[in-house]
Amino acid sequence: MIRVGIVGITGYTGEELLKILSLHPRVKITGLYGRSTSSQRLLKDIYPDFENLNLIVESLDIDKISKNCDLVFLALPHGAAFQLVPNFINKGVKIIDLSADFRLKDVSTYEQWYKVNHTAKDFVPKAVYGLSEINFENIKTASLIANPGCYPTSITLGIAPSIKENFVDLNNITIDSKSGISGAGRKSAQEYFKNEYPNCKAYEIAGTHRHIPEIEQELSGLSGESVVVSFTPHIIPVERGMLSTIYLNLKRSVTSNEVLNYYKDFYKNKVFIKVFNDGDFPSIKDVVNTNYCCIGLKIDVRTNKLIIISVIDNLVKGASGQAVENMNIMFDLKESTGLI
Amino acid sequence: MIRVGIVGITGYTGEELLKILSLHPRVKITGLYGRSTSSQRLLKDIYPDFENLNLIVESLDIDKISKNCDLVFLALPHGAAFQLVPNFINKGVKIIDLSADFRLKDVSTYEQWYKVNHTAKDFVPKAVYGLSEINFENIKTASLIANPGCYPTSITLGIAPSIKENFVDLNNITIDSKSGISGAGRKSAQEYFKNEYPNCKAYEIAGTHRHIPEIEQELSGLSGESVVVSFTPHIIPVERGMLSTIYLNLKRSVTSNEVLNYYKDFYKNKVFIKVFNDGDFPSIKDVVNTNYCCIGLKIDVRTNKLIIISVIDNLVKGASGQAVENMNIMFDLKESTGLI
Amino acid sequence: MIRVGIVGITGYTGEELLKILSLHPRVKITGLYGRSTSSQRLLKDIYPDFENLNLIVESLDIDKISKNCDLVFLALPHGAAFQLVPNFINKGVKIIDLSADFRLKDVSTYEQWYKVNHTAKDFVPKAVYGLSEINFENIKTASLIANPGCYPTSITLGIAPSIKENFVDLNNITIDSKSGISGAGRKSAQEYFKNEYPNCKAYEIAGTHRHIPEIEQELSGLSGESVVVSFTPHIIPVERGMLSTIYLNLKRSVTSNEVLNYYKDFYKNKVFIKVFNDGDFPSIKDVVNTNYCCIGLKIDVRTNKLIIISVIDNLVKGASGQAVENMNIMFDLKESTGLI
Amino acid sequence: MIRVGIVGITGYTGEELLKILSLHPRVKITGLYGRSTSSQRLLKDIYPDFENLNLIVESLDIDKISKNCDLVFLALPHGAAFQLVPNFINKGVKIIDLSADFRLKDVSTYEQWYKVNHTAKDFVPKAVYGLSEINFENIKTASLIANPGCYPTSITLGIAPSIKENFVDLNNITIDSKSGISGAGRKSAQEYFKNEYPNCKAYEIAGTHRHIPEIEQELSGLSGESVVVSFTPHIIPVERGMLSTIYLNLKRSVTSNEVLNYYKDFYKNKVFIKVFNDGDFPSIKDVVNTNYCCIGLKIDVRTNKLIIISVIDNLVKGASGQAVENMNIMFDLKESTGLI
Repeated sequence: MIRVGIVGITGYTGEELLKILSLHPRVKITGLYGRSTSSQRLLKDIYPDFENLNLIVESLDIDKISKNCDLVFLALPHGAAFQLVPNFINKGVKIIDLSADFRLKDVSTYEQWYKVNHTAKDFVPKAVYGLSEINFENIKTASLIANPGCYPTSITLGIAPSIKENFVDLNNITIDSKSGISGAGRKSAQEYFKNEYPNCKAYEIAGTHRHIPEIEQELSGLSGESVVVSFTPHIIPVERGMLSTIYLNLKRSVTSNEVLNYYKDFYKNKVFIKVFNDGDFPSIKDVVNTNYCCIGLKIDVRTNKLIIISVIDNLVKGASGQAVENMNIMFDLKESTGLI
Repeated sequence: MIRVGIVGITGYTGEELLKILSLHPRVKITGLYGRSTSSQRLLKDIYPDFENLNLIVESLDIDKISKNCDLVFLALPHGAAFQLVPNFINKGVKIIDLSADFRLKDVSTYEQWYKVNHTAKDFVPKAVYGLSEINFENIKTASLIANPGCYPTSITLGIAPSIKENFVDLNNITIDSKSGISGAGRKSAQEYFKNEYPNCKAYEIAGTHRHIPEIEQELSGLSGESVVVSFTPHIIPVERGMLSTIYLNLKRSVTSNEVLNYYKDFYKNKVFIKVFNDGDFPSIKDVVNTNYCCIGLKIDVRTNKLIIISVIDNLVKGASGQAVENMNIMFDLKESTGLI
Repeated sequence: MIRVGIVGITGYTGEELLKILSLHPRVKITGLYGRSTSSQRLLKDIYPDFENLNLIVESLDIDKISKNCDLVFLALPHGAAFQLVPNFINKGVKIIDLSADFRLKDVSTYEQWYKVNHTAKDFVPKAVYGLSEINFENIKTASLIANPGCYPTSITLGIAPSIKENFVDLNNITIDSKSGISGAGRKSAQEYFKNEYPNCKAYEIAGTHRHIPEIEQELSGLSGESVVVSFTPHIIPVERGMLSTIYLNLKRSVTSNEVLNYYKDFYKNKVFIKVFNDGDFPSIKDVVNTNYCCIGLKIDVRTNKLIIISVIDNLVKGASGQAVENMNIMFDLKESTGLI
Repeated sequence: MIRVGIVGITGYTGEELLKILSLHPRVKITGLYGRSTSSQRLLKDIYPDFENLNLIVESLDIDKISKNCDLVFLALPHGAAFQLVPNFINKGVKIIDLSADFRLKDVSTYEQWYKVNHTAKDFVPKAVYGLSEINFENIKTASLIANPGCYPTSITLGIAPSIKENFVDLNNITIDSKSGISGAGRKSAQEYFKNEYPNCKAYEIAGTHRHIPEIEQELSGLSGESVVVSFTPHIIPVERGMLSTIYLNLKRSVTSNEVLNYYKDFYKNKVFIKVFNDGDFPSIKDVVNTNYCCIGLKIDVRTNKLIIISVIDNLVKGASGQAVENMNIMFDLKESTGLI
């Protein structure tokens, strides 16, 4: 059994981690920790539906955690994780960080978009970006995983095979994403929806969402070029699930079926990617509560564009499910252990 | 009082017309007609909430209608309206047609996209496309109005000022629209949602939606160029309301505030257009149950794109409200009479 | 034209009043007033969708209002209306008060449930409870209307004919109501739904909701007995609409059809009541955005109970629509003028 | 590992069983069977999100199943299960039947409410009603479990402690339930919601729902009296979750805290029951996607009634989760193994 701790459990991702790990056949949850927990609290007082886990939430004691845990998940806001990571790593505890703190390899880009000073810069190069379909081998041996953001997951997985086959123009990428309310985090969800139920709205319009540098880093890494994307997220009135519609201009003539074959080939043996057949397109209903990323696509011959639909559950493949998938890989289990 | 008839009342748009016209201070509903009604039916047996109107739905008798009505609204599927229009027009009855039958000036384009033979081709040139912010003067004197489709309304209004000021590239227009379930018509709404509540999905992907030639006709007409657009509609789980996110590449450098001033100037004195201030963007909640089109926009300096958010209520400004607005103009009333 | 003012427009009921009155053919809105408005504000800065009304919201000046208005609607929280009513009435302005301040004839009951001291006790006896199906004649000549609460409207209308025909036990009335989120007021809606979308929950359980004394007053008045009810409201995830399921024990044997005939007879000529036929039951969809109350019922022969389903739109028949209906009656218009 | 088969996987409960069992640490799914499957189908062609299970759906071959499975779940419509049960039982396979076929001990009552002739009457007495909080010891040794219906589960668990303590009148029980759309089964959900999204409506009004004899059988069994209940189910626009509001008349004076103590005592050591503290009441959000039943209650001193709120997830504790709980008990595992 892998002995696992979670730091931060009051957000959406912490709660989802608890749900997945409590059913995982090879995991024993040996500790729950609150960053600012001053006295012990029963987990069931926070989440009545975890009464049977009979766990307590404790204040942070890194020495104790290091003895009790083989791996710690950090489900904290950005700016909090980098304060803890060095201590854990130095004591030999593996870390999967669900925040943005170690995702961006260029620390100055991180500091500019997140408006904080990074105090653990030396650990950034050691972090492996935990997108298993791209970085499987590096994840196996990593001690620090930067777990990808939800939008970057759905978008990078949607575009990667097109970059590899080199038939799209990387200078004119337009991405329009639709996310359920949990995609913006618990606090934002409360703010957005308190007076406007049900609604649909764009937010962080015109290049201001913090996932943009992460998307661009990954696409640039895959292509070897400096990629800049136009990205506009929207909130729609569902609880969870995220659909990204991606518009790419073609550099050469290609059919929908050829592109589908590129995608199916790229993702063969990837257990959590499902490429739909020609004429079929995934909806968020296809992935809610699962760790799948489903992809459909079609060439628009009238405008010479490739249109890709990529859907995930933002809390599973877009956060906690992918984190557990990374754990499975790090501990030599089948990727899908404990996941649907 | 304007004596008004409605042909077709079982669809979403017919029902919405009834709601608006029953409260209109200058309208008397003098007839409700079913295209295939064989015997008289009480309106309240179809819609319990119109019991007080105390109206009956009759079978179609064009002579009788012509005597009793100054104006007839046709709320029928495409392919049905063109069979009736000539008879009405020839008897001097004004027509506002909510179907697509007279929207496309090029009849062969109509026949290709709608897969029917048009049997009233001679009347197509006489029809005025009822987008009042563009065609006000022609609407005033029209006897046949082709009432615009919902997507074309939100999109044309969102793009028109940019075309006039000539600072965007018309060869690379990407439009991503999100519509409530009524946007696809009552039958489609039933089909989409019967097994997938709540969901979000793209449909008519890659240049196959029938509103595309209508959008392209209007944008081409405004620009004098042949415009081709990439358009992808999505269904989201709200009842009504439609948000279009429009991505345009800039041809020259321009600021968000300059563009906003172009838009405010273009739409000054247009009572149903509201251009939001810099940094504010409309959501569908801002327009549901109203005849407004609200527009927000921003330049993405990173990608040199203009991003426009245009929202309407698909059943009001996108259908029945705009039809009543056109009636008001044809009968020399204030545009907003009987409308919110 | 009736010259009308509204005091309080930022709540759900004030907004709904504006929507209805702005389309009413016999009303001119001559003033909008904020109780605590210190400087003038444009209405369109509060509600973008009322831009065309071109109205301003002013601070309260009772002398000025009295000159400009024949009737003033008070859409204020309880405890605020009774501070204003005497001044208005003394200056000859008619008042329709949408708060609870003048609904309860027993002032001590009011003070106990609402926890404020009533400072306009003398005006309580002059107020007419504005349930037009019961108090039509008194409403015609009233100068002060206490507009009924939403739950009491749906429940009193659902039970009144059973009381008249004297076949149910009034000592064991159980009422289970389901309300859309607007039923709890804008502030409560924000509170309930900020973290729990979508949800269903009971609230004010076991005899604590403030509408209980109002329901009991009306049922006691109709029956001549002192009626006590068990009432439990629930919130469901719809925007508006309210369904009350009412359980009554039978005192004598009666069939569903006999009871339906009692109801149809009781409500004949009542334009906003629709009694459904045997086997048909209304849902909230039947009344949303209308001023109707729809009623269905059935005898449960196994338990000797009458089960009544009564539905209204809480913001229309349950508040602002009923207020306008009362205005129509006070000014000798047809009840349904300007209403659907 | 328990070798498990499922017959019937296209309904809501079959799908939910698959989700739970595929993550269960002590289960190996050794067969999926369609009652009318003529040729083999890949599971992933039915449910894309189960692609990783890599299972096939086979036609029914009872000999083969009997060799491969220790336990078979039947997730079939009523009337289908009783045709299969004798063959399985006779071959020594344990059965958990999620239909109603073996729930009612009085076969004539079953035949009357379900309008079919029962062809396996001899097996009815052998079936154990699988409500573990009541029948734990019998479940341990059962070879045939009649898995309870969703409404009967939430209602029996909500009332049982009150019956034991003998302080409520069992002649006047009123139950008002609110269920998400999946509560009515996949076909009904499609029917209800195809034209009325979102809505709230009562259905099976006045003693006609088929769960009534099941509720009455269980309450009668607990009390030793013949109990008749008034039960009215409603559909609300959430996907899953079920809230029952139960109204009981008191036979003797008792406080909310006394009753809460009865309930906490009755359910001590029952891992899936959570009795809320005084003043707290569960909402469906507290149980969605879990196997918990949460209960809150309060005495209404004005009407001398006990009001109980009992919530479950209809697909988990109300169906497939409870079925797995029963399996755990039958195979001597901890009840909560593989369940949240």
